[in-house]
Amino acid sequence: MLTFYYAPGSCALASLIALQESGLAFEHRRLILANGDQRQPDYLAINPKGRVPALVTDKGVLTENIAILAYIAQIAPAAKLAPLDDPFEFGQMQAFNSYLSSTVHVNHAHKGRGTRWTDDAAAIETMKAKVPQTMTESFALLEDKLLKGPWVMGEQYTVADCYLFTMAKWLPGDNVDRDQFAKVSAHYARMLERPAVQTALAIDEG
Amino acid sequence: MLTFYYAPGSCALASLIALQESGLAFEHRRLILANGDQRQPDYLAINPKGRVPALVTDKGVLTENIAILAYIAQIAPAAKLAPLDDPFEFGQMQAFNSYLSSTVHVNHAHKGRGTRWTDDAAAIETMKAKVPQTMTESFALLEDKLLKGPWVMGEQYTVADCYLFTMAKWLPGDNVDRDQFAKVSAHYARMLERPAVQTALAIDEG
Repeated sequence: MLTFYYAPGSCALASLIALQESGLAFEHRRLILANGDQRQPDYLAINPKGRVPALVTDKGVLTENIAILAYIAQIAPAAKLAPLDDPFEFGQMQAFNSYLSSTVHVNHAHKGRGTRWTDDAAAIETMKAKVPQTMTESFALLEDKLLKGPWVMGEQYTVADCYLFTMAKWLPGDNVDRDQFAKVSAHYARMLERPAVQTALAIDEG
Repeated sequence: MLTFYYAPGSCALASLIALQESGLAFEHRRLILANGDQRQPDYLAINPKGRVPALVTDKGVLTENIAILAYIAQIAPAAKLAPLDDPFEFGQMQAFNSYLSSTVHVNHAHKGRGTRWTDDAAAIETMKAKVPQTMTESFALLEDKLLKGPWVMGEQYTVADCYLFTMAKWLPGDNVDRDQFAKVSAHYARMLERPAVQTALAIDEG
């Protein structure tokens, strides 16, 4: 059995969508970040980082979207959620996911998580002010260079699509107009049509 | 043929060590970040992100340490640089690498790359001031929870060891005493004894 820990509105949505797409049986457990659920001892015993997502498996716990997304694709090969038989194609998918986690998500986090990197209130405000610019630049690169279309990797739908959708969902809240990115916007609309995405959003929005 | 683009002192060292460990034939090309080599048109044609590392293969270009590290392990299975046959173990290795790229490296980057996230000079100074604290906290987690020992994944040496070594190499420059972390320090010393690490360092230090 798989048990998935997520928080509404968080990046865990990416792995939640992938789980829905996979056809794997899983339970889901909701954490409310504003209540500090992720810092409670019972959750820290699962993920000492105090972050979501976390996926509890029979073998142990996996954290980090990049790892969970590839794992879901690998244990549910019939769902064809990654180019598992081609190391280069798999690597390109992973490079895409890594850009989202270490650049795009990090840019976004400077809006609401500035205290991770400074203790100065005025500095935090300057960070927030730059988020629309950094997110716009990141999505311009995704639009122009990285998103092949119609899906991230081209004709094959993969877990990278779940992750891109999750980051693109944040754009309006970051004061970035998603419509300026034609391919990203079309991708977002295409994702909204998928039953797995609709189910995941219903869980996420509770 | 593989051609690897790196920059001295950068995180690309992780993939450079893994390439040395793999036994794969490759050429290496040096970029000097201080000279802006990574923003020249010829390099942007290879990696439009303007970052290192980048690995040019016969099929195309791979970027991001996480992707390159897993790719190296997959195309050189005889080197046994990852638990390729166990999705959960592979996922744990990827989760470790993802923590390094999206948390540890990002913490470190607030020392020298603050302009990515704010345009305010005073704010950048407050970011720099917090780097010793954030790097200490990250390495305390690595020491206490994530590094199994003697190698990251336990008895099997993997590409995650190349990446941890690269991050641990930055600690003195971040004003963090590496010796306070007994397992990390022992790991670092063990890495320095490996011929592949010595060769990679000689290339990196040029």
